[in-house]
Amino acid sequence: MLDGRKDLGRRACHDDGMSDERRNLLADKTPFPDDLDDRLRAQLTFLVEVDQLKTILRQSPLAAADRRENDAEHSWHLAMMVVILAEHSDEPIDTGHTVQLVLLHDLVEIYAGDTPLYDDAAGIDQQEREARAADELFNLLPPDQAQRMRALWDEFEERHTPEAKFAKAMDRLQPLLLNWMARGGTWRTPGVTADDVRARKAVIADASSSLWEAGRRLIDEGEKRGWSRRAEPTA
Amino acid sequence: MLDGRKDLGRRACHDDGMSDERRNLLADKTPFPDDLDDRLRAQLTFLVEVDQLKTILRQSPLAAADRRENDAEHSWHLAMMVVILAEHSDEPIDTGHTVQLVLLHDLVEIYAGDTPLYDDAAGIDQQEREARAADELFNLLPPDQAQRMRALWDEFEERHTPEAKFAKAMDRLQPLLLNWMARGGTWRTPGVTADDVRARKAVIADASSSLWEAGRRLIDEGEKRGWSRRAEPTA
Repeated sequence: MLDGRKDLGRRACHDDGMSDERRNLLADKTPFPDDLDDRLRAQLTFLVEVDQLKTILRQSPLAAADRRENDAEHSWHLAMMVVILAEHSDEPIDTGHTVQLVLLHDLVEIYAGDTPLYDDAAGIDQQEREARAADELFNLLPPDQAQRMRALWDEFEERHTPEAKFAKAMDRLQPLLLNWMARGGTWRTPGVTADDVRARKAVIADASSSLWEAGRRLIDEGEKRGWSRRAEPTA
Repeated sequence: MLDGRKDLGRRACHDDGMSDERRNLLADKTPFPDDLDDRLRAQLTFLVEVDQLKTILRQSPLAAADRRENDAEHSWHLAMMVVILAEHSDEPIDTGHTVQLVLLHDLVEIYAGDTPLYDDAAGIDQQEREARAADELFNLLPPDQAQRMRALWDEFEERHTPEAKFAKAMDRLQPLLLNWMARGGTWRTPGVTADDVRARKAVIADASSSLWEAGRRLIDEGEKRGWSRRAEPTA
């Protein structure tokens, strides 16, 4: 099994973030025939490379099996949630566009690794690591598509458009549902309190007041049942 | 680990295909609080139930790890392929709509199980099993959404619209890519020849002449390298 977290640091980087040494790509293991059209070859090389999303494990437990979820499963689940829950957005959103945002939002983790929501230390250089990974991964595509995919990823990260806000809300609501089903899940992470959970999940309110109301209801009820730790009363 | 293939047969069915006995749903294991809005409860119940797509194994081997792919990973990969390869469609297609078709095309397998492409026996009652599963699964949703999701699934199955033809082409091209990467994969299924592979994959041509040209090139080259079996010469 390949490790999705590869060492980006060992290679010298130019100012544009591109490395001197070419990364070994999955498609190099079984190269496509020489006479394949160049543009299509670049697209297929990218589509084979992103197979690695299926090997990046998240902290969240599945509802349907006793194992952790991977990034590809998570991304598919978010996309289904967009299709079913789009009507709850406070602002009108384009469903097809929002689906595209969630499909690709975690691709950078193929080179940058997953950063758990409740891991403050790993979060420090997350933005820089992920931006470098985006440069490297999207540039496997023909330049016009690389630019378009990068724009979609930037849109998700910046959270300015109604579609990006809703996509982010799904990214926070989905593990909340899985934690509810697991009667705790990552809410039981040592040192994490119900107040921490509420703080991390509050961005759902930027997209949907009704979904945030429901999400907060599940967090509150989980705390009451002892599935998350109560905050220590401050002096 | 739950088995996605549940026994539909043991329960009496009404003419409308609904069963007498209510299926145990995943959401029953940790019921949502009573005061949740009814419409949202139905939507969340559906979204938890479809977590089972992550437990349904396909025959195809991953490119990035030494294990078989599951339906959720496959559905995500098809959606990424639609986003990247839409320009190869012979007819103009709506990318967002096509993405929705591939996201949900395998949901029925949660209750009907996966039917391998080269398994003729399992294919005999596939249509009937999957239609009953669709009735049961989509009806977990509020009626207007159940109808809309069923219409999307029917559109995919009927393959009349340019979007459905392209979605089906992705469903055939993706395992072809994985088999290429595995230097054989399910092409090595006993009794299957390169001609069988070409016959099963030819629907790609209904959506895209350039992708079918590339796909056929990979199948031909695979046969030449001995990754699939040559057909016996007929008398």
